Amino acid sequence: MTQRSFGKHVTGIYRHLQIIINHDLNPYGLGSGQYTFLGTIAEHEGISQKELSALIQIDKTTTAKAIKKLEEEDYIYRLHDPNDKRVNQLFLTEKGQEFIPILRGKLQNITKILTTNMDKAQQEVAFESLQLMMNNAVDAVAKIREKD
Amino acid sequence: MTQRSFGKHVTGIYRHLQIIINHDLNPYGLGSGQYTFLGTIAEHEGISQKELSALIQIDKTTTAKAIKKLEEEDYIYRLHDPNDKRVNQLFLTEKGQEFIPILRGKLQNITKILTTNMDKAQQEVAFESLQLMMNNAVDAVAKIREKD
Repeated sequence: MTQRSFGKHVTGIYRHLQIIINHDLNPYGLGSGQYTFLGTIAEHEGISQKELSALIQIDKTTTAKAIKKLEEEDYIYRLHDPNDKRVNQLFLTEKGQEFIPILRGKLQNITKILTTNMDKAQQEVAFESLQLMMNNAVDAVAKIREKD
Repeated sequence: MTQRSFGKHVTGIYRHLQIIINHDLNPYGLGSGQYTFLGTIAEHEGISQKELSALIQIDKTTTAKAIKKLEEEDYIYRLHDPNDKRVNQLFLTEKGQEFIPILRGKLQNITKILTTNMDKAQQEVAFESLQLMMNNAVDAVAKIREKD
């Protein structure tokens, strides 16, 4: 709403990326709502749904929905933790494992899209800016949580 | 998933901003899902739901949900377009009008949060980077839509 709204730009870029990711993943039976979960399970096989939710910082309901979809599409499966019956452990199926390099390629393509027409120096500066903004946003959320 | 994923950073900043905005707007009965609609209606009073959906690039279902919530909370009201009975025109209520400067303040604060510890030159560079990425993302979406 202001002429130089950083938040508006971040939101605008995010929304356009969602459209691109949905377009890229729809042929695989996935959407923008699931790939982050799949990628994170790949990096932390055996993670519980609760840990996954905390790690990605997405609420339990959305996490449960994404997990259900990934299970239905046969990308992941659950095992009960032998030490704690209440805990589900999440693992990639063979289909899930085969899909990970494809997903990585799609996500690398997102970086390629965002850095179109930027030379190396501009890319460096853009990435540093994103890191600074990320740190600032994380700090602001931490402050909110301290107060609550 | 890559060490230098621009998309991951944009998504991370976006998610943290949602938490901050929800925290800021919850006392007003609003959440991160509605403020963009309210702000856009303020800038385009009399806009139809369909035009609003197209302008913000958010699907009709999400738009309908946000409009319903804004109506329930008495921030906006609908009028039937006298020239076309099928079209609803959206306007701000008095409560909505009074809220706009508060909303603007909250959104300006988001920019302030994101640019913490940046000097003028860094802010300039960060904003230019965001603009470049936004243009790149918009172009990529346009290409997808051409093909479809």
